[in-house]
Amino acid sequence: MSLLVVGSVAFDDIETPYGRAQRTLGGAASYFALAASHFTPVRMVAIVGDDFTDKEKAVFRGRKIDLTGLEHASGKTFFWAGRYSLNMNERTTLATELNVFAGFRPTLPDPYLDSSYIFLGNIDPSLQRSVLKQVKRKPKVAGLDTMNYWIEGTPAELRETLKHVDILTINDDETRQLTGEHNLLRAAKHVFKMGPRTLIIKRGEHGALMIHDGFIFSVPAFPLEEVRDPTGAGDTFAGGFMGYLAGAGRANEQTLRSAMVYGSVLASFTVERFGVERLASVTRKEIVARARRFARLTTFKL
Amino acid sequence: MSLLVVGSVAFDDIETPYGRAQRTLGGAASYFALAASHFTPVRMVAIVGDDFTDKEKAVFRGRKIDLTGLEHASGKTFFWAGRYSLNMNERTTLATELNVFAGFRPTLPDPYLDSSYIFLGNIDPSLQRSVLKQVKRKPKVAGLDTMNYWIEGTPAELRETLKHVDILTINDDETRQLTGEHNLLRAAKHVFKMGPRTLIIKRGEHGALMIHDGFIFSVPAFPLEEVRDPTGAGDTFAGGFMGYLAGAGRANEQTLRSAMVYGSVLASFTVERFGVERLASVTRKEIVARARRFARLTTFKL
Repeated sequence: MSLLVVGSVAFDDIETPYGRAQRTLGGAASYFALAASHFTPVRMVAIVGDDFTDKEKAVFRGRKIDLTGLEHASGKTFFWAGRYSLNMNERTTLATELNVFAGFRPTLPDPYLDSSYIFLGNIDPSLQRSVLKQVKRKPKVAGLDTMNYWIEGTPAELRETLKHVDILTINDDETRQLTGEHNLLRAAKHVFKMGPRTLIIKRGEHGALMIHDGFIFSVPAFPLEEVRDPTGAGDTFAGGFMGYLAGAGRANEQTLRSAMVYGSVLASFTVERFGVERLASVTRKEIVARARRFARLTTFKL
Repeated sequence: MSLLVVGSVAFDDIETPYGRAQRTLGGAASYFALAASHFTPVRMVAIVGDDFTDKEKAVFRGRKIDLTGLEHASGKTFFWAGRYSLNMNERTTLATELNVFAGFRPTLPDPYLDSSYIFLGNIDPSLQRSVLKQVKRKPKVAGLDTMNYWIEGTPAELRETLKHVDILTINDDETRQLTGEHNLLRAAKHVFKMGPRTLIIKRGEHGALMIHDGFIFSVPAFPLEEVRDPTGAGDTFAGGFMGYLAGAGRANEQTLRSAMVYGSVLASFTVERFGVERLASVTRKEIVARARRFARLTTFKL
């Protein structure tokens, strides 16, 4: 089934201990769409400026990514620059220029209005909600990503939007901030009362934890010898996860578990190179092979 | 098969956001032995003072724990006091009084000299080596725990001891400090050159990663609603891990994987209460039940 994603498309300057990339394609929606398109057709709703040309679009072409919803506005594309610490667990933002993204009001083209799998990337919660209002009927699965900026700055708007969402993907600290509860299992119960039935806690190099109201599932990050750039790992995870669910056409316990694994597998490719470079080159065969290695990483007999 | 452990037995004062315990039984060897004794007979080599009476010994009685090697010296037992931060990821040491532990020279009673499974707790590397010299023949499996204090302070001694060890259990930072390599997979290759064939990286609330020269295996920490005191979790993990191996009587890929799971399961009980309280009360039935829940936590189909 088709999967709709709304989020940012950006140019990034990235510096890590392993090198540097300038004006490379970035933004949550870019990573998400590239990852998800391995499993299901993706519809992208985002905004770019005059400086986003056919050359930049090329990476999305030849894949199951529909760019009808990619709005071109007058001005520059969202630009972000950041530098990672030596251990890559911390990053410093050197520049954030919203540019055309400041005026982003997501508008769904007519053919998108029947979308039944929707992922609301990390943008203003009121804009996230406006996307849900535009679709014809309640989506089968709606996922949402957010961050401390919205949890602190627009808590009421975020709460209102969460009422209409099935899956929330945030990190440990954001979970604690949103719920005021340190323990993650107890925090999840607060989240369930807000709307979502599934909380996915993204833990970077430590993988991800899914707390559903019926079960808990944990996946590690795939251990790699080369980690060059963590940018976009979380968005890639979300894309692999939602893409797998939409491709399967159902979100039951078994598909939710598998989706977590494929999310982690896809993210492990992203971090091997700068920006979307590795994600854009990974093949179905490589994904399947790494998923099998992933199974060996976690399999045991009691 | 019998498992020999050498390490500390102590009295601890512990303060966490969930409460306080005073003069509670602690020390790596205590947690290790209690955990391991669920799987195999344990021989303990440690030192205590005059203040360590039958009352304190009672917790080890009625279990497969041989205390012949528990030396009683004149003076006070090792005492440690610490306070955990609100998120329990950091702790401040308030007091360390080595007392009789300062004069500890591990001496194996005759019946211990045939031990084929040995765990060298976190003590001076030259003392760890002295234990290996005392046993009659090369042990089947020797495990070693150490810390930044010895990695920095006695690097040559530690390197010499590591030559005779099969399994090294340390945390992420210690791995990086020991090898000078940030990436854990590459760091493991350095460790393999030092002696051990297996590196187990303890990650606290994020579980543990085993890097063997033939395979990698990851276990999460079991998610709990109540975590009251993390003291001893790593030592409990090591005890469950080594105990399972010794009980199985072989360290092949399958038993190493299962041992990691039982290590994590045992540690999950320890942190539920202060000191050894929960570990001392846990039953075989509870361990088996939690191991099954652990399997559900990590199982998926591709």
